[in-house]
Amino acid sequence: MLEEISIGLDIGGTNIELAWIKKDATILRKLNFKTNIFNTAKIFVDQIGDIILTENKNFSEYKILGLGIGAPNGNFYTGTIENAANLTWKGIIPLQKMFAEKLNITVKLTNDANAAAYAEMIYGDAQKMKNFAVITLGTGLGSGIVVNGAMLYGATGFAGEFGHTIAVNKGRLCGCGKKGCLETYASATGIVKTISDMLLHSTETSSLRGFNKISSKTIFFAAQNNDTIALQALEFTGEILGKSLADFIALFSPEAIFITGGLAKAHTFLIPAIEKSMNNNLLEIFKGTVKILPSKLIHKNAGLLGAAALVLN
Amino acid sequence: MLEEISIGLDIGGTNIELAWIKKDATILRKLNFKTNIFNTAKIFVDQIGDIILTENKNFSEYKILGLGIGAPNGNFYTGTIENAANLTWKGIIPLQKMFAEKLNITVKLTNDANAAAYAEMIYGDAQKMKNFAVITLGTGLGSGIVVNGAMLYGATGFAGEFGHTIAVNKGRLCGCGKKGCLETYASATGIVKTISDMLLHSTETSSLRGFNKISSKTIFFAAQNNDTIALQALEFTGEILGKSLADFIALFSPEAIFITGGLAKAHTFLIPAIEKSMNNNLLEIFKGTVKILPSKLIHKNAGLLGAAALVLN
Repeated sequence: MLEEISIGLDIGGTNIELAWIKKDATILRKLNFKTNIFNTAKIFVDQIGDIILTENKNFSEYKILGLGIGAPNGNFYTGTIENAANLTWKGIIPLQKMFAEKLNITVKLTNDANAAAYAEMIYGDAQKMKNFAVITLGTGLGSGIVVNGAMLYGATGFAGEFGHTIAVNKGRLCGCGKKGCLETYASATGIVKTISDMLLHSTETSSLRGFNKISSKTIFFAAQNNDTIALQALEFTGEILGKSLADFIALFSPEAIFITGGLAKAHTFLIPAIEKSMNNNLLEIFKGTVKILPSKLIHKNAGLLGAAALVLN
Repeated sequence: MLEEISIGLDIGGTNIELAWIKKDATILRKLNFKTNIFNTAKIFVDQIGDIILTENKNFSEYKILGLGIGAPNGNFYTGTIENAANLTWKGIIPLQKMFAEKLNITVKLTNDANAAAYAEMIYGDAQKMKNFAVITLGTGLGSGIVVNGAMLYGATGFAGEFGHTIAVNKGRLCGCGKKGCLETYASATGIVKTISDMLLHSTETSSLRGFNKISSKTIFFAAQNNDTIALQALEFTGEILGKSLADFIALFSPEAIFITGGLAKAHTFLIPAIEKSMNNNLLEIFKGTVKILPSKLIHKNAGLLGAAALVLN
């Protein structure tokens, strides 16, 4: 019997990754593209489709189960990308159908946070867990929530918008139009805003004053060098996220919550702050029942692995 | 083949109901007890158990599938009642095991809000729904959440504590020790507190000033008679609940949310206020996707029916 593999396609606002992946997460072949070279979704499907068809010939000793796609605003139910703010392809794009017609194989699609949760379930530390969540702290805050061993999609396919629950009453204006959404604080963008505010209202010496453009990476390095502003910003971010997680746990009672994404690389600073604030706000019955963990896949291709996992049996 | 029936036992802080129920929700026999006549759980199981054994003889033409129990702080996983604030039986009580040993039949147990959700799923308007929630507005606020067609229990069995998510930052002190929990506003107890505050800080004429003890029933009657304070209090309660529901929907994306319990009898006033506030706080992608409905079972024995439904196949 041929060994089974799947193809993962991870579509981001800046980069696109395409890979042929074994069930043990071994990446047999990986290709990278810039998202902006594909002007339309049709051009994208045509060109990436041709590349897949050509590359597939190199994997004739395997059985290819299908193509799994992770994409911003991807809807598992409909197989479409719907009005993704970070993509130039506007409107509702039936990407699953377009690839299925081009390739004539099984194609499945979900959003990037759900793909990260699939990766955690299949390749990461959630393999034996029935109830857990993955929180991606990137440009925004995404969440993939697993309940009774299955991904939570809800009635619309869009469940799991934890980033758009209100963390601060009348707080920061969010891209979604609401105020105080969790992701305006707990994300790479959120912490950069926190740092800017802190630098503006403080006379504290900070290595971060020297940067034109602050990123979660520079904040992490500054924190490692005991920069007070960086440490305070991480503490503040953890405090907000921990408080929201206390409410999240009251609803879902997960076994573990994994954090991943660019900002989560600072987990040694973030997790203690999250846990402190979470425990201060947690109902007694949930105390000691939830682990906050850094995703082991954080430096791997979690989005790509999760996309590929979509078509695994 | 014998027709299948089940026994439902609904344990409340004040009243206990016991009934033999057909699959079409017909109640064949129903008995009522005051909770405080049973000093210990052991006495309760012995006496109710004896009554069940005696009564069962009248149902020999049916097949009795088992006993389903709804109880405050009931845990479906462990079959125990854990430190229920509204019961005099303290500690962790293995009620499922005690009844199973006494009766030698299948016994299942869950909390009262989950029982109400089972009732909605089996006998109510959620029969074809895979993703919905039932919110019980009684002394507290309970929630039974159904995801992918199955009750959400989480890792601990205690998932669904929507009443203890924070609705108002640094708000009213809750019985749980936290501040601003949703149930301190959106419950019978919560609206009575709202009315008291309003009466104290207003010179408005109100029929509610005449009562020594205000209940959700008196508030409902006052609202029907256009009492300004009652109407404002219902509006305020709906506003708080609607805002919290917007966050709830961002996480779960349910098809419908049913409200039930004493305060929900005023649904003609509450639901418009809930919907207005919810829509003001809802992400675009969820607008128009969720129905807020009064439970049709509100005047029936939802808790009892749900308990009985626990042991249905």
